[in-house]
Amino acid sequence: MAKTAEIVTTYWNAADARDWDTFATTLADDVVYTLPQTRERIRGKSAYVQFNAEYPGAWRLTVQRLVAVGDEAASWVDFRVGDEQMIGVTFFRLVDGKIVDVTDVWPEPYEPPPGREHLVERY
Amino acid sequence: MAKTAEIVTTYWNAADARDWDTFATTLADDVVYTLPQTRERIRGKSAYVQFNAEYPGAWRLTVQRLVAVGDEAASWVDFRVGDEQMIGVTFFRLVDGKIVDVTDVWPEPYEPPPGREHLVERY
Repeated sequence: MAKTAEIVTTYWNAADARDWDTFATTLADDVVYTLPQTRERIRGKSAYVQFNAEYPGAWRLTVQRLVAVGDEAASWVDFRVGDEQMIGVTFFRLVDGKIVDVTDVWPEPYEPPPGREHLVERY
Repeated sequence: MAKTAEIVTTYWNAADARDWDTFATTLADDVVYTLPQTRERIRGKSAYVQFNAEYPGAWRLTVQRLVAVGDEAASWVDFRVGDEQMIGVTFFRLVDGKIVDVTDVWPEPYEPPPGREHLVERY
């Protein structure tokens, strides 16, 4: 059985390659995808693969960080669509080498609140 | 030397308790804090402790998920200020049992884009 880090790497590489057959091999039949920001949930492998396959835009991704241990993992992924860049941070849970839980967040740029300029630099 | 998961747990428990002396023990002198959404950076233990100590609001936190292995960790933390709830997702890097890199994101609620209602339920 492949290790958690390998499975999550396969998941992301397959998504980037639009290789939905390989992508599906990383998922349990009853995988649940949760998006806390919109309070959306998708249940089941076929709906979740379809959701990814139908996701609009010529996005490409690069895994920046991956922390995986036991049956859990977290990844930080940069997405690019042309000049636009987005961050996706995802937590995974696996059972028997298949992903059963995907929970992710999509943070947006915002202006820093005032009052901390004495501690902070911009980059 | 304490394990990465213990150190990050101490970091969060101390922050929740406003115990800045204990909080500081988890940090390397040259810790760097990075906020990609605002492109802000804070360098050094004393500035970073001050930033946290001065952070406004009577926030309380609950660690929902923690994935830690080797010198890396990722945490998902729910913050509450009164009735308001926020998510903070943080990646850590450690050297010799001290946190040297804290990078976090603060995702906000948003309305789901149209076109995926056939796959999604709301919760």
